Amino acid sequence: MSNSYGTLFRITTFGESHGPAIGVVIDGCPAGLEIDEAFIQSELDRRKPGQSKITTQRKEDDTFKILSGVFEGKSTGTPISIAIENRDQRSKDYSHIAEAFRPSHADYTYEAKYGIRDYRGGGRSSARETAARVAAGAIAKLLLAKHNVLINAFVSQVGEIVAPHYTTLDVTKTEDNIVRCPDAATAEKMIALIDQVRLDRDTIGGIVTCIIKNTPVGLGEPVFDKLHAELGKAMLGINAVKGFEYGSGFAGIMLRGSQHNDEFYNEAGRIRTKTNFSGGIQGGISNGEDIYFNVAFKPVATIMQDQASVDKHGNETSISGKGRHDPCVVPRAVPIVEAMAALVMVDFLLRDKTSKLF
Amino acid sequence: MSNSYGTLFRITTFGESHGPAIGVVIDGCPAGLEIDEAFIQSELDRRKPGQSKITTQRKEDDTFKILSGVFEGKSTGTPISIAIENRDQRSKDYSHIAEAFRPSHADYTYEAKYGIRDYRGGGRSSARETAARVAAGAIAKLLLAKHNVLINAFVSQVGEIVAPHYTTLDVTKTEDNIVRCPDAATAEKMIALIDQVRLDRDTIGGIVTCIIKNTPVGLGEPVFDKLHAELGKAMLGINAVKGFEYGSGFAGIMLRGSQHNDEFYNEAGRIRTKTNFSGGIQGGISNGEDIYFNVAFKPVATIMQDQASVDKHGNETSISGKGRHDPCVVPRAVPIVEAMAALVMVDFLLRDKTSKLF
Amino acid sequence: MSNSYGTLFRITTFGESHGPAIGVVIDGCPAGLEIDEAFIQSELDRRKPGQSKITTQRKEDDTFKILSGVFEGKSTGTPISIAIENRDQRSKDYSHIAEAFRPSHADYTYEAKYGIRDYRGGGRSSARETAARVAAGAIAKLLLAKHNVLINAFVSQVGEIVAPHYTTLDVTKTEDNIVRCPDAATAEKMIALIDQVRLDRDTIGGIVTCIIKNTPVGLGEPVFDKLHAELGKAMLGINAVKGFEYGSGFAGIMLRGSQHNDEFYNEAGRIRTKTNFSGGIQGGISNGEDIYFNVAFKPVATIMQDQASVDKHGNETSISGKGRHDPCVVPRAVPIVEAMAALVMVDFLLRDKTSKLF
Amino acid sequence: MSNSYGTLFRITTFGESHGPAIGVVIDGCPAGLEIDEAFIQSELDRRKPGQSKITTQRKEDDTFKILSGVFEGKSTGTPISIAIENRDQRSKDYSHIAEAFRPSHADYTYEAKYGIRDYRGGGRSSARETAARVAAGAIAKLLLAKHNVLINAFVSQVGEIVAPHYTTLDVTKTEDNIVRCPDAATAEKMIALIDQVRLDRDTIGGIVTCIIKNTPVGLGEPVFDKLHAELGKAMLGINAVKGFEYGSGFAGIMLRGSQHNDEFYNEAGRIRTKTNFSGGIQGGISNGEDIYFNVAFKPVATIMQDQASVDKHGNETSISGKGRHDPCVVPRAVPIVEAMAALVMVDFLLRDKTSKLF
Repeated sequence: MSNSYGTLFRITTFGESHGPAIGVVIDGCPAGLEIDEAFIQSELDRRKPGQSKITTQRKEDDTFKILSGVFEGKSTGTPISIAIENRDQRSKDYSHIAEAFRPSHADYTYEAKYGIRDYRGGGRSSARETAARVAAGAIAKLLLAKHNVLINAFVSQVGEIVAPHYTTLDVTKTEDNIVRCPDAATAEKMIALIDQVRLDRDTIGGIVTCIIKNTPVGLGEPVFDKLHAELGKAMLGINAVKGFEYGSGFAGIMLRGSQHNDEFYNEAGRIRTKTNFSGGIQGGISNGEDIYFNVAFKPVATIMQDQASVDKHGNETSISGKGRHDPCVVPRAVPIVEAMAALVMVDFLLRDKTSKLF
Repeated sequence: MSNSYGTLFRITTFGESHGPAIGVVIDGCPAGLEIDEAFIQSELDRRKPGQSKITTQRKEDDTFKILSGVFEGKSTGTPISIAIENRDQRSKDYSHIAEAFRPSHADYTYEAKYGIRDYRGGGRSSARETAARVAAGAIAKLLLAKHNVLINAFVSQVGEIVAPHYTTLDVTKTEDNIVRCPDAATAEKMIALIDQVRLDRDTIGGIVTCIIKNTPVGLGEPVFDKLHAELGKAMLGINAVKGFEYGSGFAGIMLRGSQHNDEFYNEAGRIRTKTNFSGGIQGGISNGEDIYFNVAFKPVATIMQDQASVDKHGNETSISGKGRHDPCVVPRAVPIVEAMAALVMVDFLLRDKTSKLF
Repeated sequence: MSNSYGTLFRITTFGESHGPAIGVVIDGCPAGLEIDEAFIQSELDRRKPGQSKITTQRKEDDTFKILSGVFEGKSTGTPISIAIENRDQRSKDYSHIAEAFRPSHADYTYEAKYGIRDYRGGGRSSARETAARVAAGAIAKLLLAKHNVLINAFVSQVGEIVAPHYTTLDVTKTEDNIVRCPDAATAEKMIALIDQVRLDRDTIGGIVTCIIKNTPVGLGEPVFDKLHAELGKAMLGINAVKGFEYGSGFAGIMLRGSQHNDEFYNEAGRIRTKTNFSGGIQGGISNGEDIYFNVAFKPVATIMQDQASVDKHGNETSISGKGRHDPCVVPRAVPIVEAMAALVMVDFLLRDKTSKLF
Repeated sequence: MSNSYGTLFRITTFGESHGPAIGVVIDGCPAGLEIDEAFIQSELDRRKPGQSKITTQRKEDDTFKILSGVFEGKSTGTPISIAIENRDQRSKDYSHIAEAFRPSHADYTYEAKYGIRDYRGGGRSSARETAARVAAGAIAKLLLAKHNVLINAFVSQVGEIVAPHYTTLDVTKTEDNIVRCPDAATAEKMIALIDQVRLDRDTIGGIVTCIIKNTPVGLGEPVFDKLHAELGKAMLGINAVKGFEYGSGFAGIMLRGSQHNDEFYNEAGRIRTKTNFSGGIQGGISNGEDIYFNVAFKPVATIMQDQASVDKHGNETSISGKGRHDPCVVPRAVPIVEAMAALVMVDFLLRDKTSKLF
């Protein structure tokens, strides 16, 4: 298992969906940072279940407790440990999967790899684990804010409904609707689609787009820890993610170099690019332009329909979703994408401190 | 900088495009593996420049020398160091970029991050560094072969020309043409397109698709080092890559869960899935089905046309490609994608040895 | 900060002396291990304060709670998180050191490094943190027991009172007395000395010797992670440790090679050495003989006497120990040394799984 | 195997005693450092064989070649690779150990762990590998010199001959004699002893003491990577080392806390300690006083006398040293101890850059 992420700002998460608690230990947070607990809670609230008609009805208030690393409101340089109790655990909802493997879930692979699994709610493979990431990401955001780095994600696609390009949107409106798309008209369509899918006892996928503004020039550690490579890994490590692209992404392959290259110019002493197909990253290092990327989420695997499957003894069986689940994961994925992006960026901010002689 | 990749099978690469040599140290290769030097050379030959009319005309024979770690033809468990001398270095081709920044290259970001850069041929940011990865990847392939794991990549798209789905192709034909697309008809069109782009003094992007067969069930280390997350990071760390998707990928977001879920069945005692939208990976762990993924490469940044830019003093200037460059990188990227995939897979193979009590 | 230890069996500890809780996350414990909670508690009880007249009178029952990673009594391969609440915190005992630096404590260096510190009970620098190591070490011991590896530490020296050589002792008697020296006569003298030192309002140092039996041949990862190098690091990372030696140690420098070399012989098919100056480790790798090493602990820095010091403003001041402290740390250090040794050994046991082709 | 050392300034060494070359890759050296090649060579010369009558007569001039990472005389932030060819390899000297295990060498444990070994000159377990560390350490010293950190090691004991305490010695005289003891009278006795031991066809151990001056306050990363814990690991990782102690070390256990504590005072605005039993490190973090430590080296295992042993088939046999070997390792160990200390210090210097908000 590998439950740590980051090199200098390093998180280790723990916990299962239906165990006593989930949580995170953050090692490497510089000392002296004001830890705004209300902000951490507000980030957790964005991710928590039961927010609206298009999310799961599981009720968790996701209140957290800081166990260490903060003294008189500030980080001390020692590890910050945060625990979130699990409360609304209806473990009996899961007895039907104690032996059977849910299609497109991690049940079979966990059973095969470990020979044992906590099947309740998917155990460790549940997206509930991402609450710990959001808590840690909130602290990363507090540190980034000291350097004016801003991270905003939003839902840019649900099924075939696509939002306009990010440069035309006002991301401060993302929280104005329950699907977290800053374009109101698109949001309305997305919500209607998700609601219909829910009534169909089905699920659907989507895309979260993330924008990072005001990144200092120079973040990223080639050749293997390129800025976009770490962003990609961080995003692909989120449950249900199937793809990642940054800048021109997959569409860029259609362009010629003469169209795609971002010419440099001097804007009042600051080196800028005229276009930004590079997505703010060149050679794996930030160039100061907007960083933007897309994260593709598959349709949620749990559906309220009968599906064929097998159990751990190899017997063929039928299985249907029970419990409380999201018909579409992307609205709640927005703060998770932001949190992982914040963790990546803060780590590179720290790592860059030793690039040059000091 | 971060020039190491892997946890247990760990490579560290070094070298600049126009320095004395490039190379790699492999730490963690199990002892007793027969090191087939002819195979390593054949892999390097697939990547080397000057192979055909659609690749750069730089001439490097890329012969390698093993400096350590092999005794009487076998790995000894000690670090295997491989060096490849640089020979055909026409450094004078690069005097024009000693001060100016090539658009969509790493010149500006390296200068900003490090305050100094070896500008000759892009220095460390040159794709020449990937020869070291291919040499290491060849050894990873030798180890994977002991476990019957097969890795095959091919060119599935150049510009708008798209090959048929991999399940309809015979990947043993990939090396039959210079563009490395196993479908002869598509290959012909791709070659014609690249040749035209070259004559236009321009460049174009494409996709490399990679298939991994016979993976044991259980590889991958959730929650952060999911199998596809590491594959994604490894691919995004290759020069010019802009996107990664596995299984159903970005297209999967259009599907409903009821369409997308891979139902299980029992095939003569082995648990299989009827479809494979999961791309052989569930919950970040291999399930034994084919692993397949796409890697998007942007058009090469060096074009034989004048482009606006600035120099390190902020002066606006004009710059044009000189030297010898590829009009399309994907044919030569095929062995690089395979090498990185092999490094990921062999690392997870080793890491899985301690998942259960032994 | 660096609060993680281990490569494959990796612990991350957190918590301050007077914060809400201390604890540990264990990542990499193989699945399927029976987690004997009574054994974990018994190990914590050996370390806890207030055990006898020669230890601090702070009362902590050090009961622990497992938050994750265990299902139906067994490890699942997911991170095992253990929390121990702090209860008997008399923080007011520490107001005198909010500004002043205690001699030979970490107060000054933490203040200088971090610019802020939780001064209560030494905060993170308190040996209270080692309770988390003991809990994790208990689980490591459970895993080692499956491979018959036995770890026993005991007090071999207090001040100038020295126990006989380990080969003449019965380590099963270590727990028979409060100083944890298996030789009853020596133990009596040690206890008398510590008690006298306590009455003198002073402290004294000592040595813990540790013996590891039944180690498989082949553990240790040269060249940098030699078995004894990791044991040394692990021991030197325990509070108050000033030195580490293994096998012949510092005394070995007096010997000639002809005296010191351990000749090999064949004992019924098993390769043994006639002597064991090597301390069971050759070239950084275990050879199957007993591993033994000494760990030197300085006299505890907190004494009940006035000492000159300065405060954070540079003013000279006087300071005296308050609160509840140990006159000699070695009796309570015994389980800590064992725990760290267990963590080292289990990590090497896992790492060795990939030394050879499998 | 683990052939990398360091977290941010990270070296990876490679090479066997009788392979084509040994070398090192340094990843994480900040850009802009002037790389003084003459200094690197002078450090290698201090370690190289054949320097005097009391060292091995193997002739290696240990000239090195920088393969990457340096441009126009300065580090570029990219990996610095250094190779040193092996030249005077008399491999035939080693045919007698192809099958037999030399007592107190790594022959048996390597064979057991890896199932194969390059027996020539001990292969990877040879101290020849330390030349790579010395080359890397020289670069670390160049970086430390920018911060005025000075590292000086010397021979303080050979057998029973002990030099005076370091505070009474002038370490600039260390290189004035072939045994590298700055006290001329003691040096004379040490040389005579080593020469006698050599004539006896035997070997003897000793101690290297190392002093680090001008360390900034705040280096070291508790709780596991305490400054002295990493120094200890680094020293214990050097061939033939059996023990490590810093500050008061093993002798400190005899003292009472009231004697051992280092009282603080204010020296013209700088916080100092009156005594320095702490050895410049408190709570694992440097306090600005001299860091000093002792490293114990066992007598060299290769002696020119017959010894009983067994071969890989379990047959009992007799073996005697051949080839060219040192009668006492400590004179040549001095630059190795300094190099490892430099690597530790430079790594902590870099790691400390993110302890506080910046």
